[in-house]
Amino acid sequence: MAVSVHHQQQETDGNAIEQLIAATREDMDNVNTLILERAHSHVDMVPELARYLIESGGKRLRPMLTVAAARMFGNSGGSAVRFAAAVEFMHNATLLHDDVVDESDMRRGRPAARMVWGNKASILVGDFLLGQAFMMMVETRDVGALAVLAAASAAMAEGEVFQLAKTKDLDTTPEDYAEVIRAKTAVLFRAACEVGAMAGGADEAGREALSRYGLELGTAFQLVDDVLDYGGQSGTLGKNVGDDLREGKMTLPIILALSDATPAEHQTIANTLGKADASEFEVQQVVTILTRYDTLSRTLSKAHEHAQAAIEALGGLADSSMKSILARVVEHSVSRAY
Amino acid sequence: MAVSVHHQQQETDGNAIEQLIAATREDMDNVNTLILERAHSHVDMVPELARYLIESGGKRLRPMLTVAAARMFGNSGGSAVRFAAAVEFMHNATLLHDDVVDESDMRRGRPAARMVWGNKASILVGDFLLGQAFMMMVETRDVGALAVLAAASAAMAEGEVFQLAKTKDLDTTPEDYAEVIRAKTAVLFRAACEVGAMAGGADEAGREALSRYGLELGTAFQLVDDVLDYGGQSGTLGKNVGDDLREGKMTLPIILALSDATPAEHQTIANTLGKADASEFEVQQVVTILTRYDTLSRTLSKAHEHAQAAIEALGGLADSSMKSILARVVEHSVSRAY
Repeated sequence: MAVSVHHQQQETDGNAIEQLIAATREDMDNVNTLILERAHSHVDMVPELARYLIESGGKRLRPMLTVAAARMFGNSGGSAVRFAAAVEFMHNATLLHDDVVDESDMRRGRPAARMVWGNKASILVGDFLLGQAFMMMVETRDVGALAVLAAASAAMAEGEVFQLAKTKDLDTTPEDYAEVIRAKTAVLFRAACEVGAMAGGADEAGREALSRYGLELGTAFQLVDDVLDYGGQSGTLGKNVGDDLREGKMTLPIILALSDATPAEHQTIANTLGKADASEFEVQQVVTILTRYDTLSRTLSKAHEHAQAAIEALGGLADSSMKSILARVVEHSVSRAY
Repeated sequence: MAVSVHHQQQETDGNAIEQLIAATREDMDNVNTLILERAHSHVDMVPELARYLIESGGKRLRPMLTVAAARMFGNSGGSAVRFAAAVEFMHNATLLHDDVVDESDMRRGRPAARMVWGNKASILVGDFLLGQAFMMMVETRDVGALAVLAAASAAMAEGEVFQLAKTKDLDTTPEDYAEVIRAKTAVLFRAACEVGAMAGGADEAGREALSRYGLELGTAFQLVDDVLDYGGQSGTLGKNVGDDLREGKMTLPIILALSDATPAEHQTIANTLGKADASEFEVQQVVTILTRYDTLSRTLSKAHEHAQAAIEALGGLADSSMKSILARVVEHSVSRAY
């Protein structure tokens, strides 16, 4: 029976994303055209590197949220498409810089851009994408939405610095962690949804609802990502499992475990955290401790709370098929961890 | 006699910058206050690193040009100050990223920020400064000026990628070089002057004049910098001389020399270009070749042409003390090389 329920849930979840894709296909065709156009440069390395990353099969969830939010309020015309492309550029600029900062070898299942073109090109092409994002935003002449995106850009960088400062810091608190994931993930989700609503012609309440929705969805999304990095709820080792641990990232499963652990367990975690060449066995030892204190499940409970808050944020808005799709996207984002 | 003329020129030049400083002091006090305010973050590493760089004794020529241009047209109020601070943040963000890309150890006579806080923090704090720059621009609600600065931001990054692609490329042409210095330096000088004029209330002709002035001044400025990197017109070795050579940068003195050089000289340059640990003797060998083909002087001649064009760009504008200060700033920027 459990298997069957699980199976059914997966199908429903699949449908949620598929429904979002279907509901935004027309707008996303325009977004994708604009993305290709704006990744162009007569400097060959720019489009080569940018397209390598952008076309590497990311789901483009953020720009889909932007155009979905706009469509929900009736207007998915020019500005929403520009904002969506800008949001995707901001996201990819961040990925390029993050991979340099984290010394990541892989991204989306293939060598990170920095492994192909080098760190230097990754830094500079990231800067280029950020500049192009800003140009697209300016073209909308919507100063209010520009302010939202500019603030998101600064907050994201600030959050990355904070995360860097907290690397391997065993005294990192759950509050510190909440701040990190807010800045590194939730803020861009929020901005993506908020400017979509603004471009769609939402009133103040609609804008606030989508802003809250994006923030809570982004938070849930990152919590789930951080659980997936340890193999999901079951803590099953697989591809890329333990990356955060090897990079010394203080995510909630680790923070919660450290506060409950015995001195010996504490030492085991401390020894492995930030050890770039930690073996699968060493990672497994840490995952065993996380499982012992149930911190993967406890992190997922947190994700569920934020997912619930995201759905509730939409509560005051008129019912529509887009609204129900957005609600189900939240459920999907959490169900990834099971 | 020659000595006396030279001495007198230096005094006049000193006065040009001092006059610019005096004429912009009131506005620059506001700019500097804003810079400190906006470099603030509760993440300690952000203001520490940002202020280390920003307060390290750069002349703040770019923001001075912005407020000077605004004052020239009568209005140096709120927008000009915000644009000036934004321009300085954009400049410093670029410096942070450039030092990582160029693996530079020193900046403005002291260890580069990346030597103190590391490459990772330099990348991320650069991103933060860029985000804050966008925020300050957006606060002016001047979409026209925003477009100028956003385009400059993308063009600068594109130019840096182009320079990276041309590193150690012995076939780099003078046209390639012109494109590199346009993007890496002249475009920001132009934007600084143009948005200053816009904030000052200039008409279309005034805006175009300041845009042209900034572009030509920036070009002259970079040409002179590239000559100074080989010790100035006299090719005298000193502190930091040969950095461009060791980093494999294809600047005009090298490009011109390569096209005239004998096969043996060509080989000498090729062997030293991009050799990070090239000795002073090896650098001297290359400088000897540059001197033989007079390429430092020829590069300075180019700088003079652009300086002249910068002064001519101001020709159609009403005479004012600010106009004559801006003209003399051009002369100063070129005289640095003697």
